[in-house]
Amino acid sequence: MTFERPRDSYHHWRVNFEAPIAHLIMDVDPDAGAIGDYELKLNSYDIGVDIELAAIIRRIRFEHPEIKCVILMGAISGTFCAGANIRMLASAPHGHKINFCKFTNETRLEIEEASENSGLKFLAAINGACSGGGYELAMACDHLILIDDRTTTVSLPEVPLLGVMPGTGGLTRVTDKRGVRRDRADVFATKTEGMAGAEALKWNLVDELAKPSAFDQAIAVRANKMAETSERSASDEPLLLPELNRVMTEDEISYTYVQVHIDRGSRSLRLTITASSEQDWPLRCALELDDVLCHLRFNEPEIGTIVLRSVGSANDVMIHDQALLNPSNHGERETSFLWARVLSRLDLMARSLFATVEPGSCFVGVLAEVALAADRTYMLEGIFEDDENPLPTPTMMLSELSLGSMPMANGLSRMQSRLWLDEDGLELALATVGRPVEAAEAVSLGMATFAPDDLDWEGEIRLAIEERATYSPDALTGMEANHRFCGPETMATKIFGRLSAWQNWIFYRPNASGESGSLRSYGSGSRGDFDLKRT
Amino acid sequence: MTFERPRDSYHHWRVNFEAPIAHLIMDVDPDAGAIGDYELKLNSYDIGVDIELAAIIRRIRFEHPEIKCVILMGAISGTFCAGANIRMLASAPHGHKINFCKFTNETRLEIEEASENSGLKFLAAINGACSGGGYELAMACDHLILIDDRTTTVSLPEVPLLGVMPGTGGLTRVTDKRGVRRDRADVFATKTEGMAGAEALKWNLVDELAKPSAFDQAIAVRANKMAETSERSASDEPLLLPELNRVMTEDEISYTYVQVHIDRGSRSLRLTITASSEQDWPLRCALELDDVLCHLRFNEPEIGTIVLRSVGSANDVMIHDQALLNPSNHGERETSFLWARVLSRLDLMARSLFATVEPGSCFVGVLAEVALAADRTYMLEGIFEDDENPLPTPTMMLSELSLGSMPMANGLSRMQSRLWLDEDGLELALATVGRPVEAAEAVSLGMATFAPDDLDWEGEIRLAIEERATYSPDALTGMEANHRFCGPETMATKIFGRLSAWQNWIFYRPNASGESGSLRSYGSGSRGDFDLKRT
Repeated sequence: MTFERPRDSYHHWRVNFEAPIAHLIMDVDPDAGAIGDYELKLNSYDIGVDIELAAIIRRIRFEHPEIKCVILMGAISGTFCAGANIRMLASAPHGHKINFCKFTNETRLEIEEASENSGLKFLAAINGACSGGGYELAMACDHLILIDDRTTTVSLPEVPLLGVMPGTGGLTRVTDKRGVRRDRADVFATKTEGMAGAEALKWNLVDELAKPSAFDQAIAVRANKMAETSERSASDEPLLLPELNRVMTEDEISYTYVQVHIDRGSRSLRLTITASSEQDWPLRCALELDDVLCHLRFNEPEIGTIVLRSVGSANDVMIHDQALLNPSNHGERETSFLWARVLSRLDLMARSLFATVEPGSCFVGVLAEVALAADRTYMLEGIFEDDENPLPTPTMMLSELSLGSMPMANGLSRMQSRLWLDEDGLELALATVGRPVEAAEAVSLGMATFAPDDLDWEGEIRLAIEERATYSPDALTGMEANHRFCGPETMATKIFGRLSAWQNWIFYRPNASGESGSLRSYGSGSRGDFDLKRT
Repeated sequence: MTFERPRDSYHHWRVNFEAPIAHLIMDVDPDAGAIGDYELKLNSYDIGVDIELAAIIRRIRFEHPEIKCVILMGAISGTFCAGANIRMLASAPHGHKINFCKFTNETRLEIEEASENSGLKFLAAINGACSGGGYELAMACDHLILIDDRTTTVSLPEVPLLGVMPGTGGLTRVTDKRGVRRDRADVFATKTEGMAGAEALKWNLVDELAKPSAFDQAIAVRANKMAETSERSASDEPLLLPELNRVMTEDEISYTYVQVHIDRGSRSLRLTITASSEQDWPLRCALELDDVLCHLRFNEPEIGTIVLRSVGSANDVMIHDQALLNPSNHGERETSFLWARVLSRLDLMARSLFATVEPGSCFVGVLAEVALAADRTYMLEGIFEDDENPLPTPTMMLSELSLGSMPMANGLSRMQSRLWLDEDGLELALATVGRPVEAAEAVSLGMATFAPDDLDWEGEIRLAIEERATYSPDALTGMEANHRFCGPETMATKIFGRLSAWQNWIFYRPNASGESGSLRSYGSGSRGDFDLKRT
């Protein structure tokens, strides 16, 4: 499975640009399922459809500064979107279901983040049936207009019809974004047929109604109003997204600035980021990191530990860092938001993340955030004595970018998350912004975990990786999901923490995924053969 | 399984009272496992041990106002507590594992709540090995003293040793209560042998060290200091906990003020609370409700829907309500805290909760909170016309008690949770405090969901119950867990939401619970035969 989508290669979506408005028309090709033999009927989607959606949104952000409002609608008369394809879910392995939901959740959250950060507004033009994941997609938009034709409904029929939960943040957004009363949320999420017209508006499930004859006009008026609130500007220079240079062999993945070396014996890999003074480094490096993380999630499920490394000149990173921190134009601004999203994707990897800080590394500025995303960090105390021309003792360095401009899902910076409840410690750590910190100090400040010396370095890290490989993958995933997001909770931590954890269990149970479970019996007239015990 | 424990009937604990200190000594009887044939070695525990612990803490709160500090320690030399018994976990059905963890979590949270609300302080005197659930129990205490004998450690070995997570809030308390850095939390939770002495203190895993020769003295000094901070008083009148009058038949459970009628066909039950002017009503009714909720969790797993009803005089409830809101003595104060905990237990039932408000009901004051705990509420519009002497149209009435004195796990009142993000609506609803509200208004204010009239009443409710019974029990549990706790997150919602949801999945997976999973292979020398894919 690949994640890059060349410009205008889209199979399931059409995009029409009429600045300041773009029409993003969902037109799913029923015969182009990405992972198996199922028919993507009625604008239902699978991972392939969502990878395109994510690629299109990214492209609009970078390459179309003149677009201020995106209208999302269905191409088929009477259909907006029927949600995730059930046959796909029924036949997909458990891990795919989970990674599919995680990716689609990230895309929905990016819609909201693009609205908040880039001023790119999204209007859901619900021109027909809008159910399950379709309604969840609509809810990620800023404004929902529902066609008021007496038959078109919005619905979350997963619980009554499919025996699973709405898996793309639907339950969370109904209560925590749209403020629907929880007793009404209960009714709505158990009402197979959903709610139409005035009733849907009254419960705040949509923002506006329009009769069929006035629908197009209402959409146009609203889209223009929304565009007026946007600060995006046609006079900004587009930044064209480069094509990735990826070379893959059995155990190596190589991009321009990102290299991966897999060690299948220890079920681990080394992911090395190379710094550069090249002007394209910030954008290309972020795109490469993003691409490889998605690749690893879907294509390398048995690799349990990712060792994060960096190589290159700290100065090179710091020059780019200024632009990421205080972007001076459209392209730099979008590149900065992209880094924040990629770091967030890294935080959400269901893999153990170790960082190693060695001579020659450059975990400074934005790359310090990569190291701080790790579950633990090994930092060499001193130098590698036996090297012919030993490189100087390694340092890490925070920049102002670590003060909160690239927050984790919990809304905190990575240093705040590490030093949660330790305000004095946080003050000490942040006082080092702009100053290189060696191993012993980094450990005491919370930037690193262990500071082995030359003698212990290799053995200690190898042992930790090998030990990790003997632990239950499930227990590690659960533990890391709990440890990483301490402190406050946001809609994102709720979606990735609570909602996804429950769904993980529900998907795994025979009640949903067994031979006679609800996903497989969907459409057969039977509701599935349930173990009736409540847990 | 029963939950009431008569005074001095304890099998696994010894309590010595030396006011203002109580010694609570864990002395688990290895041969008295509650649910199967396993040996409770080394102060390991099962549900029976925890039911006693909860009963003892409750009794100290009500019956021993002279006790200001409880010292928790192990009876066995070299052993504090080895945590939940693994053989028990390996052999218990999935539902029991989950309900066991939920109950033990509630007990740990009560320790913290007793400290905060009642000023009853807890000192963990870690006099020997303290691992897994043992350390989680210690972390629920206000202060942890570790014997500094070079061998005694605190540890969370679940991930590396058992292939599951620490299930009683351990991961959450390490980061969110004790403020341990998350990279250190990662190291600690993967370190089978745990951490001893100065190292444990440095990482804030314990609060104090004491050499073996000085251990008893250090405990005594600290306990007395802690007692000095408490406002509990020997001159307060103890309130003796009454014995419950419970009569059970196949489908009926009857207490003095609580009655349950099970309808197995629709997998539902009616739970009726009867109001009374009797002085013992507030305490007895709360105890009965608590007992029946625990009973239903463990003994009636297939009953999916609980219909909450009330019968009696609103005036009777409101007289007691004043004392619950503004308690004037020790007994009233503790009764008020007990109601808050029981309501919280109700919120956490993994069952659908419907409330029905009919003529003759009395959902006012504290009983309004029972109705507001429901996922949805049906309230009769008007009267039952065909009754010979129809009772007046039903009303609900909030008291000041609904303003936040009995918070949900998310720290919000039940009305705040229902009207999350709707500040105007909340103001309107709270403006009705002290005024009876009829059905139509209750629906618009968020106190009720539906207001069917006489003609529709029975059919509409029956249909809703029958429909609910056709849905996947798993999907309902997940949906309700997400809907009920909107808005902010607390340690409790993290524990019951995120941590427990992950554990639910982990427990269910063959990696933990399969024939060659980690729980069953524990002690065999093998670590279990894992599906190595990360999810």
